[in-house]
Amino acid sequence: MSQKTILQQLDEVLAARKDEAADKSYVASLYAKGTEKILKKIAEESLEVAMAAKDHDNSQSEQDKEHLIYEVTDLWFHSLVLLAHKDISSEAITKELQRRFGLSGHDEKASRDA
Amino acid sequence: MSQKTILQQLDEVLAARKDEAADKSYVASLYAKGTEKILKKIAEESLEVAMAAKDHDNSQSEQDKEHLIYEVTDLWFHSLVLLAHKDISSEAITKELQRRFGLSGHDEKASRDA
Amino acid sequence: MSQKTILQQLDEVLAARKDEAADKSYVASLYAKGTEKILKKIAEESLEVAMAAKDHDNSQSEQDKEHLIYEVTDLWFHSLVLLAHKDISSEAITKELQRRFGLSGHDEKASRDA
Amino acid sequence: MSQKTILQQLDEVLAARKDEAADKSYVASLYAKGTEKILKKIAEESLEVAMAAKDHDNSQSEQDKEHLIYEVTDLWFHSLVLLAHKDISSEAITKELQRRFGLSGHDEKASRDA
Repeated sequence: MSQKTILQQLDEVLAARKDEAADKSYVASLYAKGTEKILKKIAEESLEVAMAAKDHDNSQSEQDKEHLIYEVTDLWFHSLVLLAHKDISSEAITKELQRRFGLSGHDEKASRDA
Repeated sequence: MSQKTILQQLDEVLAARKDEAADKSYVASLYAKGTEKILKKIAEESLEVAMAAKDHDNSQSEQDKEHLIYEVTDLWFHSLVLLAHKDISSEAITKELQRRFGLSGHDEKASRDA
Repeated sequence: MSQKTILQQLDEVLAARKDEAADKSYVASLYAKGTEKILKKIAEESLEVAMAAKDHDNSQSEQDKEHLIYEVTDLWFHSLVLLAHKDISSEAITKELQRRFGLSGHDEKASRDA
Repeated sequence: MSQKTILQQLDEVLAARKDEAADKSYVASLYAKGTEKILKKIAEESLEVAMAAKDHDNSQSEQDKEHLIYEVTDLWFHSLVLLAHKDISSEAITKELQRRFGLSGHDEKASRDA
């Protein structure tokens, strides 16, 4: 039974995209275009998060909440693409969060050992 | 034994900060200042990610790699603060990633049942 | 003889684009797509300014200086498109700069009277 | 009689700030902190432009229009500080706009000759 977190599974997906043709996969096309292109996507998604959050502030609607979740996911996704482009896994981020907040890394370690 | 992921533990930390005084906690001070202040932090961290990534492109050094990890962590952290400010947990993001990539949500579900 | 500043002439160009078809002009297509699309371009250009400035910091080359000038021009241009989209002229900006810094508005006034 | 445009006058103000102490002038403090600090201000102002434009979209109020003008001015101002930090004048930008749009540079040239 898989014990991997979503982020650990996504790391594997993003690593696998490195062997794909740029015209077959969106992620592979970003790797091919390079760091600056990925950074432009991150800047764009960052702005989209801001606009969605402002919309939700105004409406408090469930639809705008879903939209905000969608845009934050886009922002995280493109930052994971940046990390993968540089052979860094999401674990580097969760470990840094763990260190800063004195959190337990029990299960993540367990899942790697499994 | 805790089965919670780092992100699930961090959700709890961020929720707990809601009851703290703004002058006692950085996160509580961000909640008090509101959405626009948090969005400005996200924009700033987004730019810092870009600058760190450019530096790493140039140097390929381990130090700049650590700096990039640090800045992506800051970006994720402030987007989690934004979500918490709006009573959204990190699970909304990991579930959306799971949905997009057809990933297994096994262990996350298991940890919630535990 | 024209006494208009470059910015005043550009205001006229941007206003004229309002009567053009979206598929005939880049600016008309931005107006048609609306505020959020223009804001995304501003966020993107802002990031490009940052990357060009970092490159120039590293190289101090004439080529990177030209690149920086190009990107700041793009940033200003897209912010002028945003203003024009909202029927605000560049004069609103130059007047606000004038007010803040106690500058003389002599010639700009003269050119409007001419 | 001065024939200088507002931007040309502002160039002179920004150049003069280079000789001032960092603790006596906001602009001098930005020069002292360097490119990355100025870029962070540009990213922040870019986001503030976006939030002000969204607010104006919603309200169409005169107050939000004034706020937008204020924030675009901040964005332009900080990009002029970046240019001045690198000994580039606003004329580099207006000339590039002139070139792109085939505008007349008559008066700007005249004002420099005066």
